[in-house]
Amino acid sequence: MDFISGVKKAETLELSEILDGTRTGQRVRVNGAVHTIRHMGDVAFVILRKREGLLQCVYEEGAAEFDLKKLKEAAAVEAEGVLQDEERAPGGVELRLKTVRILSLPDAPLPLPIAKWKLGTSLEAKLNMRSIALRNIRERAKFKLQEGIVRGFRDFLYAQGFTEIHTPKIGAKSAEGGSNMFRLDYFHRPAVLQQSPQLYKQMMVGVFDRVFETAPVFRAEKHNTRRHLNEYTSLDLEMGYIESFEDIMAMETGFLQYTMELLAREYAKELDICGAVLPKTEQIPAVRFDRAKELVSEKYGRNIRNPFDLEPEEEGLIGRYFQEEYGADFVFVTHYPSKKRPFYAMDDPQDPRYTLSFDLLYHGLEITTGGQRIHDYRTLAQKLAARGMSEEGLEQYLDTFRYGMPPHGGLGIGLERLTMQLIGEDNVRETTLYPRDLSRLEP
Amino acid sequence: MDFISGVKKAETLELSEILDGTRTGQRVRVNGAVHTIRHMGDVAFVILRKREGLLQCVYEEGAAEFDLKKLKEAAAVEAEGVLQDEERAPGGVELRLKTVRILSLPDAPLPLPIAKWKLGTSLEAKLNMRSIALRNIRERAKFKLQEGIVRGFRDFLYAQGFTEIHTPKIGAKSAEGGSNMFRLDYFHRPAVLQQSPQLYKQMMVGVFDRVFETAPVFRAEKHNTRRHLNEYTSLDLEMGYIESFEDIMAMETGFLQYTMELLAREYAKELDICGAVLPKTEQIPAVRFDRAKELVSEKYGRNIRNPFDLEPEEEGLIGRYFQEEYGADFVFVTHYPSKKRPFYAMDDPQDPRYTLSFDLLYHGLEITTGGQRIHDYRTLAQKLAARGMSEEGLEQYLDTFRYGMPPHGGLGIGLERLTMQLIGEDNVRETTLYPRDLSRLEP
Repeated sequence: MDFISGVKKAETLELSEILDGTRTGQRVRVNGAVHTIRHMGDVAFVILRKREGLLQCVYEEGAAEFDLKKLKEAAAVEAEGVLQDEERAPGGVELRLKTVRILSLPDAPLPLPIAKWKLGTSLEAKLNMRSIALRNIRERAKFKLQEGIVRGFRDFLYAQGFTEIHTPKIGAKSAEGGSNMFRLDYFHRPAVLQQSPQLYKQMMVGVFDRVFETAPVFRAEKHNTRRHLNEYTSLDLEMGYIESFEDIMAMETGFLQYTMELLAREYAKELDICGAVLPKTEQIPAVRFDRAKELVSEKYGRNIRNPFDLEPEEEGLIGRYFQEEYGADFVFVTHYPSKKRPFYAMDDPQDPRYTLSFDLLYHGLEITTGGQRIHDYRTLAQKLAARGMSEEGLEQYLDTFRYGMPPHGGLGIGLERLTMQLIGEDNVRETTLYPRDLSRLEP
Repeated sequence: MDFISGVKKAETLELSEILDGTRTGQRVRVNGAVHTIRHMGDVAFVILRKREGLLQCVYEEGAAEFDLKKLKEAAAVEAEGVLQDEERAPGGVELRLKTVRILSLPDAPLPLPIAKWKLGTSLEAKLNMRSIALRNIRERAKFKLQEGIVRGFRDFLYAQGFTEIHTPKIGAKSAEGGSNMFRLDYFHRPAVLQQSPQLYKQMMVGVFDRVFETAPVFRAEKHNTRRHLNEYTSLDLEMGYIESFEDIMAMETGFLQYTMELLAREYAKELDICGAVLPKTEQIPAVRFDRAKELVSEKYGRNIRNPFDLEPEEEGLIGRYFQEEYGADFVFVTHYPSKKRPFYAMDDPQDPRYTLSFDLLYHGLEITTGGQRIHDYRTLAQKLAARGMSEEGLEQYLDTFRYGMPPHGGLGIGLERLTMQLIGEDNVRETTLYPRDLSRLEP
């Protein structure tokens, strides 16, 4: 009988092992994709792309025991050679090639100049050849940073006593109601895709006190802007036993502090490649919705057209105001009007026209919506009734409150938007692996 | 201007702080849900439920400065009292109550006896009152273990150089083709929900070498069994530069080893509550598909009815065989027939009627399907043609291979099934937070 007993150390080296300086002069084996080949007469530079970065290999006629013509860009290879210090090479080390084993060959020359520092291709072209375009080092690095953000979110919340949950994306009813839902047929029953895990995460606060989820959400909004997606990854949390909705903002601030430290520590290379500057997170100003509107109206001479909503341009100006006045990258805008928040939002007892809620703006773009929720069963039932909403389909949700729930609140963060602002991209599709929008459903 | 500067230490204690033995005799503050109240004459035990477990509080008339009648089961409270060692209390500590602040009150008595050790309620009843049933300590612990499995998966793979990705769940085309897809209208275009991230994770191997995703998948299968769900959480990985498909089984074995150690270390309490016994993962037997069928046919006298498929009963017997003969909890079944595997599966060059693929059985239940994939563009195009499949909608996928891909393979693990087998439940709905099946679409 054969037995499988776990992962064995590979005979090929990873880039970090090659660059650690302990193997100079040694013959080593390494695999990777041929990123580019630069011919220089009798010598050629063969750049291997590995998951951790690029390795400069040198082909020298006579020294190498194979024919360079065998190699093609985009081939997958396993190479053997001798490591030499070379200060002009990335990482200060190069591999003097001896032999090469071809693992696979491409069928056609690359359609994009992926070895260039900046691809210089339109967003459309990049999305139309996503799996090729992302082989560019800079394009790839964006999604490594995105990984770091999700890791930071989870690891911080684990340490804060949160439990990770997995809630269904197909349902009979959605959290926010309204029309912007994708509808499907579920074994001859009408169903929708969830716009958020809102109702589920609230129900789970009564079980785990603190929960989070990192999962896709679906919005059938007909916006076609640089910041809207019809499917995105939402970083959601919900926490019980809060004293006030400031506890939720404090938790988000803690997440940002933790995550920026994680990125600085473990993703420094990708930050550098993307030219990303970590934002300041020590303290984040919090300003009331109505006050924020006044401030930007006064400073930038912009009329308040709609006292109940923030237009994107207004969000941009709020970001600019707090950047200029306080050097702040983030700003919490608090106390959104009740009529603009969903039924579960808790109204401010001091002025029920407003809610104990907030958005977080990052360089003038909303990346989070959050707030305290109603936890009292009767208050919740009354609010539903006052809005003319039906309790149908909300029975289990409402029963959760009927049988006792602590004061609680939470938030949802748009992962792709947060990544976009961190890197300073101007379109959220740049930081979405395979965007879904009004025109894009493939691949 | 107000500023938010991060998470502050709460004035209330967590259970681990209470139980660390350093505060005996001290007056402390703690919050939680009133799990149950047991009246014993002038004394009453008030059990508080917190995310880390239960805390025994003692109400003594005269000593406490409030009226016990104020308290109700399922209320959320903040209590103050003095900690005393008490060996009969869980954790060896109890809180002698002084004051209680009510944070919220339920509107009705609990419909389930959640304070009992085993709920003793039907699965149907539990699912119909999910957010209440999970307040039971044992029901809740299952999902804490599920969290541990996902954590183990991610943390192990990060350490193995994998990159986490987020792929779209709405698409124009699905990986496996076939009819078991949920269909929806995407802005007047036909769309489907992805059955797996298969095509996306393969495309990303050309970018990151090794990728993983933990996300929902959707299967419109009309099975109504104890092991099928129509939406589940799939733990997916895909890795390049493999020498053979054994590398993928080795990676899965490594994940299981890492995760069982993580559970033993950080989830011992929940393992104990659920009575779960960690499976043996040191070495996992691997047996060919055809050989496995012979072995169970010989030993258990069962005729081989279909040489190309494993029936659930046969899987059960294979599990039993390897349990009896090798003391194995897991067994890899390898070399599945080509006609039963999708187009991207790599056929065995030594006998193309079979594939370089595997399933992993855990106590006789399939929890993983995996294998090596075709990485050569022409071979892939030929296989599609030979199956009479169209390339339409697969253009970006195929181009990924046209422009070079390393040898690679991967797997998908059903999280709910793995959790079910670990705990020894007999229905996958027991370990699914909100199951979606033929009849259940709510809440």
